[in-house]
Amino acid sequence: MQRSPADADWMAAAVALAGRGRGRTAPNPNVGCLLVRDGRIIGRGWTQPGGRPHAEAMAIAAAGENAQGATAYVTLEPCAHASVRGPCCTSLLIEAGVARVVAALKDPDPRTDGRGITRLRDAGIAVEAGILADAARAAMAPWWTRRAAGRPFVTLKLATSLDGQIALADGSSRWITSHRARAHVHLERARHEAILVGRGTLEADAPSLDVRLPGLEGRSPQRFVLTRGSAPEGWTAAASPEATGEVHSLFVEGGAGAAAAFLAADRVDRLLLYRAPILIGGGRAAIGDIGLGDLADAHGRWRLSDSRLLGSDRLDVYERTRRE
Amino acid sequence: MQRSPADADWMAAAVALAGRGRGRTAPNPNVGCLLVRDGRIIGRGWTQPGGRPHAEAMAIAAAGENAQGATAYVTLEPCAHASVRGPCCTSLLIEAGVARVVAALKDPDPRTDGRGITRLRDAGIAVEAGILADAARAAMAPWWTRRAAGRPFVTLKLATSLDGQIALADGSSRWITSHRARAHVHLERARHEAILVGRGTLEADAPSLDVRLPGLEGRSPQRFVLTRGSAPEGWTAAASPEATGEVHSLFVEGGAGAAAAFLAADRVDRLLLYRAPILIGGGRAAIGDIGLGDLADAHGRWRLSDSRLLGSDRLDVYERTRRE
Repeated sequence: MQRSPADADWMAAAVALAGRGRGRTAPNPNVGCLLVRDGRIIGRGWTQPGGRPHAEAMAIAAAGENAQGATAYVTLEPCAHASVRGPCCTSLLIEAGVARVVAALKDPDPRTDGRGITRLRDAGIAVEAGILADAARAAMAPWWTRRAAGRPFVTLKLATSLDGQIALADGSSRWITSHRARAHVHLERARHEAILVGRGTLEADAPSLDVRLPGLEGRSPQRFVLTRGSAPEGWTAAASPEATGEVHSLFVEGGAGAAAAFLAADRVDRLLLYRAPILIGGGRAAIGDIGLGDLADAHGRWRLSDSRLLGSDRLDVYERTRRE
Repeated sequence: MQRSPADADWMAAAVALAGRGRGRTAPNPNVGCLLVRDGRIIGRGWTQPGGRPHAEAMAIAAAGENAQGATAYVTLEPCAHASVRGPCCTSLLIEAGVARVVAALKDPDPRTDGRGITRLRDAGIAVEAGILADAARAAMAPWWTRRAAGRPFVTLKLATSLDGQIALADGSSRWITSHRARAHVHLERARHEAILVGRGTLEADAPSLDVRLPGLEGRSPQRFVLTRGSAPEGWTAAASPEATGEVHSLFVEGGAGAAAAFLAADRVDRLLLYRAPILIGGGRAAIGDIGLGDLADAHGRWRLSDSRLLGSDRLDVYERTRRE
């Protein structure tokens, strides 16, 4: 099959659209969809909060009649199973008259699992799969991790001084990082379905841990506290890193004990390291004991994936190197 | 006076030459000198180990007869005082017949202090000063700090995990950073006149602390140990951060106690933060207690001046923001 040189470019745009639903579409994947005809975008869609409408339905609704003969770029194979909440996306694409479907990933959902592609081809639609698969998997990482590993995609946030401290010896920690770095943390919170803090952090800081970023106030995620005891109102107790239920994405905010618990359980997929240009010296370290007995075991686990300046602070993003 | 647009470019080359002598010219400044005629470089010089020959003498010797009518770019005002070790540079420049001298900095040495410029002008040579002064001051920072603040220019090295640890709880620290980062440390050692470690580090690691970088073995710097006691053979005891004598540049290698002592005494000019992409958790912190009572006091002291990847490790260089 002939691939247009622009396919990867259109798919990159669909991957970006997928990112818009991140943290808000569980239990459904956050899919992105771009409808293109004659070299022009005629419809864009992404899975809506709560999982419906699907990305394809949104894009087709936007394109209307223009969808006839168009190419649909989707980050995931369109679903082939009808639901009480609406028709399946393969039916919608067939009815809309699209000529070609390009998918980044096949859907491992046993209810679809290649059946979407088969149905489209049976209807005379040209289908390709596998373009920008890695990028699509990264954009849908929470859903993918839940499906592939049976656990949430976990981001661990550390906000420290240059010497890795999160507080003075007396516990005071306001403020280490700048307003701009903290605003970025709020944005990351909004991209996660749930947040988690340790019992000590909850008691010491009584953090509201809501999303304070202007425009995103309504997106406050679910709140867990890591404790064997009970949780205060508005919070859910998680007795261990494994006990956060069916959430797809979890943002671990601290403190040192919670960070250590998730690292020791090998449950961290991504590290956000916010670092202020200050030295504390003799304060409180960001991470408690993780049971590391040999330095050699610490190497080869993390790979730098992004680095940027947030005012005078620096954000380094590391991702785990091991795949599941 | 008309400035050629190329003056700053030539001076930048002279500043780079000045860097070649860094750590090796005490008690003299590490000056760089470029001789240019008809748009071509006809001589280059930098202060030689031990302080002689001076940069100008080296450049003039290289240029020979061609120095006639040339422009000399020097990072520091040429000296006006003869020494038993050789004639002064103003005399050499006058005798060589240079037409113009461009200096980045005036020499605050009371034996020169403008007299070099005056002597050159009296001999009919056009003189300008102040071009790339900041860059020249940075290249000659050790000498400048010794002269302006009466103390050495101090670089503090920290080689840590992402969470700021320098060892496991049991003290093991081999290896956190990579071979490539450690090679860079060796290079930095060679740029300093002296190194210093804490008593504990000396006893625990028995580091040779020599310059192991191929090609630089002969440049091993003077060795201090921070202790009120005695020093082993080959080492000099420094009872406090203030007690390193007349050295111009000092490389503080650790451990946490020595780092804290220099920071608490406000004696650190430059931080080299080497960071490996590993997490330790519950290990040993890089810096001991520095007496910080309020987080607000920690801010505004450090400015990122360089950041680079050394293999999978990262080096961030911070410089103090306050001038002396």
